[in-house]
Amino acid sequence: MPAVRNVLWIMCDQLRFDYLSCAGHPYLQTPNIDALAARGVRFSRAYVQSPICGPSRMSFYTGRYVRSHGSTWNGFPLRVGEPTLGDHLSDIGVRNVLVGKTHMTADTEGMARLGIDPETTIGVHVSQCGFEPYERDDGLHPDGPYSPNPPYDDYLRRQGFEADNPWEQWANSVEGEDGEILSGWLLAHADKPARVPEEHSETAYMTNRAMQFMSEAKVDGRPWCLHLSYIKPHWPYIVPAPYHDMYGPNQVTPVVRSPRETEDPHPVYASYMEERFSQVFARPGVRERVIPAYMGLIKQVDDHLGRLLAFLDEEGLTETTMIVFTSDHGDYLGDHWLGEKELFHEVSVKIPLIVVDPSERADATRGTVSDAMVEAIDLAPTFLDAFGGAPKPHVLEGRSLMPLLHGEDAGRRRYVISEYDFSMRGARIRHEVPVADCRMTMVFDGRWKLIHAEGFRPMLYDLRTDPDEFADLGADPAFAAERDRLYTAMFAWARTPKNRITLSDAQVAAKHGRELDANILIGYWDEAEVEAARKRRTGNS
Amino acid sequence: MPAVRNVLWIMCDQLRFDYLSCAGHPYLQTPNIDALAARGVRFSRAYVQSPICGPSRMSFYTGRYVRSHGSTWNGFPLRVGEPTLGDHLSDIGVRNVLVGKTHMTADTEGMARLGIDPETTIGVHVSQCGFEPYERDDGLHPDGPYSPNPPYDDYLRRQGFEADNPWEQWANSVEGEDGEILSGWLLAHADKPARVPEEHSETAYMTNRAMQFMSEAKVDGRPWCLHLSYIKPHWPYIVPAPYHDMYGPNQVTPVVRSPRETEDPHPVYASYMEERFSQVFARPGVRERVIPAYMGLIKQVDDHLGRLLAFLDEEGLTETTMIVFTSDHGDYLGDHWLGEKELFHEVSVKIPLIVVDPSERADATRGTVSDAMVEAIDLAPTFLDAFGGAPKPHVLEGRSLMPLLHGEDAGRRRYVISEYDFSMRGARIRHEVPVADCRMTMVFDGRWKLIHAEGFRPMLYDLRTDPDEFADLGADPAFAAERDRLYTAMFAWARTPKNRITLSDAQVAAKHGRELDANILIGYWDEAEVEAARKRRTGNS
Repeated sequence: MPAVRNVLWIMCDQLRFDYLSCAGHPYLQTPNIDALAARGVRFSRAYVQSPICGPSRMSFYTGRYVRSHGSTWNGFPLRVGEPTLGDHLSDIGVRNVLVGKTHMTADTEGMARLGIDPETTIGVHVSQCGFEPYERDDGLHPDGPYSPNPPYDDYLRRQGFEADNPWEQWANSVEGEDGEILSGWLLAHADKPARVPEEHSETAYMTNRAMQFMSEAKVDGRPWCLHLSYIKPHWPYIVPAPYHDMYGPNQVTPVVRSPRETEDPHPVYASYMEERFSQVFARPGVRERVIPAYMGLIKQVDDHLGRLLAFLDEEGLTETTMIVFTSDHGDYLGDHWLGEKELFHEVSVKIPLIVVDPSERADATRGTVSDAMVEAIDLAPTFLDAFGGAPKPHVLEGRSLMPLLHGEDAGRRRYVISEYDFSMRGARIRHEVPVADCRMTMVFDGRWKLIHAEGFRPMLYDLRTDPDEFADLGADPAFAAERDRLYTAMFAWARTPKNRITLSDAQVAAKHGRELDANILIGYWDEAEVEAARKRRTGNS
Repeated sequence: MPAVRNVLWIMCDQLRFDYLSCAGHPYLQTPNIDALAARGVRFSRAYVQSPICGPSRMSFYTGRYVRSHGSTWNGFPLRVGEPTLGDHLSDIGVRNVLVGKTHMTADTEGMARLGIDPETTIGVHVSQCGFEPYERDDGLHPDGPYSPNPPYDDYLRRQGFEADNPWEQWANSVEGEDGEILSGWLLAHADKPARVPEEHSETAYMTNRAMQFMSEAKVDGRPWCLHLSYIKPHWPYIVPAPYHDMYGPNQVTPVVRSPRETEDPHPVYASYMEERFSQVFARPGVRERVIPAYMGLIKQVDDHLGRLLAFLDEEGLTETTMIVFTSDHGDYLGDHWLGEKELFHEVSVKIPLIVVDPSERADATRGTVSDAMVEAIDLAPTFLDAFGGAPKPHVLEGRSLMPLLHGEDAGRRRYVISEYDFSMRGARIRHEVPVADCRMTMVFDGRWKLIHAEGFRPMLYDLRTDPDEFADLGADPAFAAERDRLYTAMFAWARTPKNRITLSDAQVAAKHGRELDANILIGYWDEAEVEAARKRRTGNS
């Protein structure tokens, strides 16, 4: 039996890799996350397969690159039949359970075409990206057409927080000086506490729900992979007291940007600098107002993780539970003249990743930092491996992290890949790019980062001499050889998708040479040749 | 209403592009196929997306490259949910009907995972690659585990041809001098007539079944696309009288091969030369025995097409039916020291393709030969176009041929692509290639043909100076620039798969800029900014 009986897979949303004390943040203390790092391996070079929620998560949940799963932006449905981690775990009797966000959009047209009723067990499994939705909540429920009534709303009402939309009006609003309700969406209000008390906030609620699941699962008895997926510190940048004023402008680290970046920038990058969500962060005082709230949200998550880890101890789960802590992408927060995420600077595409393997074999690596290049898609094969499932390299495009966790040299990845579809942003309109061509691909070898955008010159950064990524060498003739090398790597990746997903390599190999047994006699001249071949085959078998 | 009410899509199996009199064969007369060419456009540069039955057909039936549909070899299941021509036609009320072969293997595991019962209408549609199987018959039913009892067997029995396996013992066997039954699989017997009388042979039977369908469809009333898919002239190379001795060794054209090809050949090519099905064709007398039967099989198909076209006339279908004649790949027949198909020489990867559009707009091109580079995946979008369906460029990777049929200049394809998975052949074993790396890709621009095999040097042919493809320039330093150019084209193709199949480009464009309407307020500082933005949006809309 494998040492890992359960997996607790914690994900934050929009958490930068460098906003943790174990990753070197000078002001933000995250002792509980740091404690996980001390118990496991912290990966200092972990990259998402797309620097935006939906496609990044679809890669996490399928173990496949965006080019393979095809859900290239938020809300672009994941094609029906795309194999998920849930499918692989279900095959070996492990529950794949969700508490929180997935950003999954079901392919309802495809489901209808295949006659899959969304209300059936299979229909729910498919619609929920292979998760058993113990608590599905994508975390954004503004007034209007967007998912109006999550279970969290009912919870708030039961606590006495009455409103048409408690999520909006309590958890993501603040009060003005005269008691008026102000929108938590607006950055100006980021310094005020959320109207909801901390113990009833989304982070607290989801933590409680995770603990409830684990209690119930004890009775159920089956092993589980629990994806506890917090919406925070994703915007709205609003946090309840006391976290709202735990940090101030003095704890905001300096913005990382250079005038050099604005001199003849790559056209796609230039368009992102022009987006409202970027320009607002360039205004005086905005970072100082927003970032303390962002830090407070992280601090709050850390505190609840402390509560959660104590619960695991009390329940006797710590010895048998693999714990993973990560995020779906970063947040520019004004760095590089940008807001949001979506492009490929480290603060956007690199994520925190900590893996605690409780087994003895992992003792040698506890508390270490690995600088191996790893990808978000490595988690699905890691979990399959941890539960003792057979590897599925014909489907899963990531690699199990278990050898790295056990201090084994399994051959390291030479580069990481990330993709992005900019069809939903101004860059498509401004540069009149056809929707289908709004494709960007990053290839990064640990030093050199090349970003290809169809129809444009590439971008190129040397992170050794330019760790802040200020100097785009994409058009510099001096670096043609580096660009060629990285393009060669990208080409090798592009022409080897894992497309033959219905048969494993072993199944293919086993099919070889069966024609004679099936009496498919290709290329035999006469009866004597067939007889001789049959004798050879019998003799060999 | 579009001028095309129905499509009759005739496919032969393993028919070379040059074994038709309209394509210049010196001895084989195919007047009925020639008549189609005279009524439509004959494409002299049409290429399959994989030079072997299964994957080639999956590309025909999905309109997508092999890298996209993932069914890379015969019998490798097509993933459930992969969109098919049948799905697209069904959406616009057109029946997609099969008589004959598809080589489809259903993804039964994927179907089970999605709860799709193979016996339901949807289950059959999915299992049959989007076809309504009026008569499904893949044409190979040898004794043993391979599909033992096609409806054709019952038909033969009803005609009095009793046997455990009438397909094997009547349609694909011959009689020896003493009346003994000899296997039609064996090339030595290719000069003898099949035991079945011509009028009850597979080609005759399938033609009859197509006519029966068209009669019934008249009553039904819905428009249809009928795929009449003959197994012939695919092996077993056995044809009934009088076709078995209609051609003799004197009508066998000279073998096209050169000693130069055997001097330091590409390792994968070398392995194919070593296959039994290749070596047998290099033996004296084998081509002379086999090719007359191959020609007889084609002649027989041509005669039945004459019967079929007369039927269309009688039924009043000619004026409203688009007729397509093609094949799924060629046959080396000893050329290039090879048998079978599977590699990328013209005789393997190039196919006959004739399209007769009955509409007036196509009058200008009747009887012409087009040298446009076209691909097998162009047929699915052509049919959708012919029936008046909206194009689906986010799913279909081919291009409608309608502009070419109507004499319009729609911008020509600059190169064609074909792929091949050699994991099921000796080349994998001999060269110890991992199953997943047994990938080859051809890019051909009409003059230069580059073939990439993972882990090997490329092959390169210049068809202008070397139309017989004897000189592999893949390792010649003098042609580095040509190789680079074709690799650049292959890279552009490889990084732009149509993966976002759940949303059209138009649907993506329509989603743009909806965040404000959904009250997703990203990057706004305060209430005044939101109000101003709302006013701008209202003013603009």
